[in-house]
Order: sequence, then C-alpha cells, then structure tokens
Amino acid sequence: MKKEIKLNVENKAGGISRRSLLGGVLAAAVLPLGELFALEKDVNITDDPTKIPGPGPSALGKRSAFENPVRKPSDISSRTPLQDLHSTITPADLHFERHHAGIPNIDPAKHQLLIHGLVERPMMFTLADLKRFPSVTRTCFIECAGNFRTGKEEMTPQDILGLTSQSEWTGVLLSTIFNEVGIDAAAKWFLAEGSDAAVMTRTIPIAKAWDDAMIVYAQNGEAIRPEQGYPIRLLLPGFEGNMNIKWLRRIELSEEPYMTREETSKYTYPVKDKISMFSFEMDARSIITYPSYPQQINKGYVEIRGLAWSGRGKVSKVEVSTDGGKSWEIAKLQEPVLSKAHTYFRYLWNWNGVSTEILSRVTDETGYLQPTLKQLVEARGQHIGGYHMNPITAWKIREDGFVFFKPENYTK
Amino acid sequence: MKKEIKLNVENKAGGISRRSLLGGVLAAAVLPLGELFALEKDVNITDDPTKIPGPGPSALGKRSAFENPVRKPSDISSRTPLQDLHSTITPADLHFERHHAGIPNIDPAKHQLLIHGLVERPMMFTLADLKRFPSVTRTCFIECAGNFRTGKEEMTPQDILGLTSQSEWTGVLLSTIFNEVGIDAAAKWFLAEGSDAAVMTRTIPIAKAWDDAMIVYAQNGEAIRPEQGYPIRLLLPGFEGNMNIKWLRRIELSEEPYMTREETSKYTYPVKDKISMFSFEMDARSIITYPSYPQQINKGYVEIRGLAWSGRGKVSKVEVSTDGGKSWEIAKLQEPVLSKAHTYFRYLWNWNGVSTEILSRVTDETGYLQPTLKQLVEARGQHIGGYHMNPITAWKIREDGFVFFKPENYTK
Repeated sequence: MKKEIKLNVENKAGGISRRSLLGGVLAAAVLPLGELFALEKDVNITDDPTKIPGPGPSALGKRSAFENPVRKPSDISSRTPLQDLHSTITPADLHFERHHAGIPNIDPAKHQLLIHGLVERPMMFTLADLKRFPSVTRTCFIECAGNFRTGKEEMTPQDILGLTSQSEWTGVLLSTIFNEVGIDAAAKWFLAEGSDAAVMTRTIPIAKAWDDAMIVYAQNGEAIRPEQGYPIRLLLPGFEGNMNIKWLRRIELSEEPYMTREETSKYTYPVKDKISMFSFEMDARSIITYPSYPQQINKGYVEIRGLAWSGRGKVSKVEVSTDGGKSWEIAKLQEPVLSKAHTYFRYLWNWNGVSTEILSRVTDETGYLQPTLKQLVEARGQHIGGYHMNPITAWKIREDGFVFFKPENYTK
Repeated sequence: MKKEIKLNVENKAGGISRRSLLGGVLAAAVLPLGELFALEKDVNITDDPTKIPGPGPSALGKRSAFENPVRKPSDISSRTPLQDLHSTITPADLHFERHHAGIPNIDPAKHQLLIHGLVERPMMFTLADLKRFPSVTRTCFIECAGNFRTGKEEMTPQDILGLTSQSEWTGVLLSTIFNEVGIDAAAKWFLAEGSDAAVMTRTIPIAKAWDDAMIVYAQNGEAIRPEQGYPIRLLLPGFEGNMNIKWLRRIELSEEPYMTREETSKYTYPVKDKISMFSFEMDARSIITYPSYPQQINKGYVEIRGLAWSGRGKVSKVEVSTDGGKSWEIAKLQEPVLSKAHTYFRYLWNWNGVSTEILSRVTDETGYLQPTLKQLVEARGQHIGGYHMNPITAWKIREDGFVFFKPENYTK
C-alpha cells in the first residue's frame, strides 16, 4: 500500500501543481519562476528522506543545519534578529545583550542579594531564599533606551531595532521582598546594583516596587542566561532596559535618587533647552519585520507582519500604511495581547507591483500614538540625542519587489 | 563612593543576616544550617566578580556552566525535565522527542506538501508557498498518548510525565489550505503522512481541520527544530502527540479512516471487553513539579508548584492536597490561562515537619475531573494498557524533608 501511495505522490507531483496553484487564491500572486519550476519537478527519490533512518533522540536539541539565526555582536552589545522570528518569544540564546564590562561568571551558591538602607530589617538573601517566596511569571519585553539606528537603505530590522527582546520571566515580586525587610516610610527611591565589573547602578522610584517590579531567576522556563543576569536580575516591566539591573547583588532604599553615572551623564537627552532625566517608560513603537531588507516580494498577496509594544501598557491598535502614509488600515493583533509586551501584528496586503512605501504605527492603551521623526524633532529640538527614539519607520518596495529601509531624515 | 558602598556591603553582610532572616516571615521556615552559615559569611573578595571584566557579546548565548537541564534520551524518545522549568514555555532544545525511525535531514528548499484525494484541486505546496498564507500563532502543549510511567519511589517528574512539552507555534490554519484546494463534500477524514523513514501516518476527522488544526513552521519564534518536524509539522491542539505528524509531506482526503498501523495495533487500549480506538483528545491531568524527588524541603513555607493541562480546553481549577487526599485547597493559576495549554499552578503551604503526601488534581472547562488510578481501573478494567493514563499522582514527604514518588498500585 505504501508503494502505491508513493507512486501516487510522484505522479501527482507532476503536471497538476502549476495549474492548480494558479487556480487558487494564489493565482493573484504570480510565483517567481524558480518556484514554479520547482513545483513542476517530481519528488527526487535520491533525496527521499523516507529511505534513510535518521539519528535518534538526544539530551539537547540543535537547530537544522539550514537555519542559522544569530545575534549581531559588537564590542558592547548584540542584537536580536527580529526578521527571523515569527512570534513574540525570543529564544534565550538570541536575546539581545548590552553589557558595560562583560558577563560576570557567578556561582549561584555564593551569590547573595543585600537589601539595606531605609529598611526595618537589612537582610541578605541567597538564591535559595528567593526561590522559597511565592513566585510569579510575567511575559514582557526588555528594550535598550538607545534602541534605534538609521542612516542607510541596507538595514535589517535587527540593525534598526535589534536591542529589544521578550521572555517569559519568573521570580518573586519585589513588593514581596520589600514587605519582608520592612520599608521605612521615608524611603522614596531604591538603588539597584549589579555584580558585574561595571558595578552597574540605577535608582528607581519606590512606586515601581509596589507596582510590578520583580527579582527574576528564570527566563523562558529555565534559569536566566548569563548575559541576562544569571543568577538574578531586576525586572522593571516597560522601563529602560538599563534599569533592569543584571547580576543583582544590592538594593539600597533612600529618600533621594543617587544620581549615578547611568542616570546623569548617560540615559539623559536634550528636550529643547533642558535635559530630560529619569525618563523610565519606553515609548510605544512598532516595526514591520516582514517584508524587510534584504527580502524580495512577489506581486499579489503579501502578509505584512511585525511587532508593536509599549512600556506604558497594552497595545490597543496597530495601523499599517501601504501607500507611504497617505492612508492607514487596521492590522490584526495576535491574542493574547499582554501589557508591556511585544505584540505580533499582521495585515494581508495585495501588492499590485507598483513601487511604494509601507509603514506601521502603534497606539497604546494610554492613547499615545507613535510619532513621526518630524514630530519628535519638533517636540525635542534638533539636538535630539539617541535615547527614546521611537519614530515611525518605513520600508521602500521597488518595482522588482526588493525591499529597502527608508533612512530617517532628521531635518525634514 | 563605590569603595564606601562596597565596605558597606561587607559590614552588613556580617552579623545582621541570621537575626533578620529569623525575624521575618521566613522565621516560620528554619533554614538548613548550611544556608545559615553561608549567610553569616562576609562576601568573599576573591570571589568578587566585580573585580574581573567578563567576556563580551556573542552571536549565540550559552547556559551558565552551573545549569545543565537535559532531556533523558532512550532509543526511541527523550523526556523534558519538567522539574527544571519554572513556567509554561519549553525551551526548544528541551522539547520531548518521540520518533519511530529517527530524525530525517530535510532540505527546506526541496520539501513539498501534497494535498490530494477528495479535493477539487490537488496541489503541491513548498515551504515558501505555505509562508505566504495568513499566519497564526498558538501556544499549546503536545503530549505523547503513552505519557505516564510509574513503578518506583526514585522517579522525577521527567521520569513520570516527561513526554509533554509546550511551545509557541506559528504557521497557517489547515482550514485556510483546505479552502485553497477545495474539499469534496464526501470527505470525512484526512490522512497525514510524514517524510521520516517510518513514513508515519495517522487519519484525522475532518472536523479538526475546520476547528483549530494548523500546519506549523515555527516554534518559539524560530524555525521548528529538526526533531519537532522541520520544516513543517501538523499541529492538532489537544490531540495525541503521535497524530501531530512531523516532517509533513502529504495529506489525503477520504470518506473513511485509513486504519493505519498507528491507529489499529498502536494507540488503542482495552476498555473492559472492547478496544478503544481513535481516542484523540488528551485527558486533563496535572503534576506537582516542586517539591518532587530527589529534592528536600524545609519546615515552614513551601510553595507547591506544578503544571496542569487538558486536551479539551482550558484548565478551570487545580486543587492541591497536603494531607494525602483527605482535604483539597484551590491552587493559584498563572494568567493568562490558555486553551489546550500547560497551565502553571502554585499553592503556598506551611509544612509542620510531619511526614505526609501531597497531590494535585485538575478540573477542565468541560467539568472533567482528573481521576484516581482506582477510578481509571474501574472504568477500563485491569488490562488497562499504557495509553491515556492520567491518574492523580502523589509525592511522599518524609520527616527529614526528602521527597519520594508514590508509585501507583494498579490493584487498589
């Protein structure tokens, strides 16, 4: 019977496929010749994997040799290949990195977290202590405040916005630990300090601790990866990535912010004739990840796909324009839409083969609408700096279907 | 200033910690002496990671050398380490495997899917074709119909129930493709065939195609892993894992089921004097993953944690018993609770140090309550077989805090 079925496959694989493809919905989408010829070919028996038993089960799986998603490392960071991802979870080994003195090698049995300052009971916690407290899981993005690059047409989503990633984080609410040590009523801020060689420090308003801040020890189910803060990191959903202190070893409660280097000379930006500091929430933004450079599309149906997110809550609406911003259509959002989380959007477009520009813009539940670069410059002035840059971005589609980034122009 | 802060750390790390730990909520939980002594120690400067700049960013991340979660491979399967996971997503390299002839090595550019039989337009689809259709993402579990082992006290959750895993799957709804080829009204079933050396085949009622069946090409955002069906697999949310045909190459529509080996001699089981066949949905079940063998717990607060799921819809309730099943308490479910998905549950227990047994049981949205083994045997008879075994399982807690599995007794 198998034999019959196989012959069956080969016969049917012959003449019918082109005719029927053109008969269906895809008729509207003329496939590139290469694909059509492929469809005409019979199944090549010598390539038939049913003829060769494969390797058996293993302790750890590997990617197919045909798939090689990689981060783009520089000396200080690596970027998530957003264009290679089809949904919202970032595989842990592809989560973006931003270090200030490399990745510390920490023995979890020796690591401790000190909480002191304006507290009733200064305490040290081991990882084992932290795991004994009631745990919670939260899926949210972490994004570098400096996420956004532009300048040339040959840029991928990874090049433009690769400093954002999303994980399913598990740990203990900071409020649970703060109740344990007892917080002095005078405390208004807390310092978080990492145990990397940069001894990274930021000060956070105490309201965030009573809201949704966490100390997390797990990422996508397993232990946090070393470059994400192993064995523990601070998680501040929606806040600047830099504040989500990795390799967390100390929290000190205080009346005033500590004005660390990272919140005075860094992570500040000019707004007209003033400097904005302590700008915590990441503003809503979106990016089309398909189609994008260096891909080529075909006439007919193209599902435009991408990510949208906001540090202030849920994405309430994503709009897509396929005419350079003249008109906007509502994209479909992948459920469940979570607060302060990457949200996957999709919009089915029928491309007529004429060159155009495609854009996306997001509105979050606070009513905030992702701005154009022109609006950002108007609001902040020409010396706009590199932080909290979330302009609408566009892809140019050429008549041959090749896609290029449309570099932002800061002056228009 | 850094210097001051560091000294600060060391001083505070000294006398205070034990006193304050005993002063807090954890007082109820006497820590093992080892931990207390650790807490007494000052931070060891020679171990201070802030003194050594670490390695920089990389193309792909690796796990900490202190973390080594692994699947347990046999010659035909490998099992997910449920006890090592803190939430619901299974990292792709830890997803369980069950092959019948190993993992085929498939060139995605050459792979094609034939859909024929009772259809209006038999068609071949390349991976590129399938990716052009409107895509959807769904998080759900896949579980082997034979998942459940028992027999001795020294068994971990991985040993007992490691043949279930969960991913965020992305692909195209089968109904979208069926509308493309046009289904003959006479078609009531469809055969799905894999391109592994076992040429795995199962027949599925067509209603599943119009409901929620998918052809998926992505797992946790990236391309499906080879052992999960690269480049495409059939996804039948809630159905027996074996029916979610991997390396999918052919679908044939028919009036009757094909009665393949996998649905006649396998994946059937005795129910009294009859044989149950085509038992598609995986029944609701749950397991406590912490505490579990070979862990040891301490007196006081212990957060009991585990997974519950149902092939018929959402988990509506998980109950935990800490007195061997005499009384049951409601566990907290991690939101969002998704349909046909692993759902993480938690219950905070204050252990008094007396030996006992802890159990969990789930109720799904259909009102189905996870049965005891006794109830399963009563319903199905003594020759119960190994498929669809979802009895309530128990962990024995000894006075010294060590945890052991309570092997099921098929006769009582």
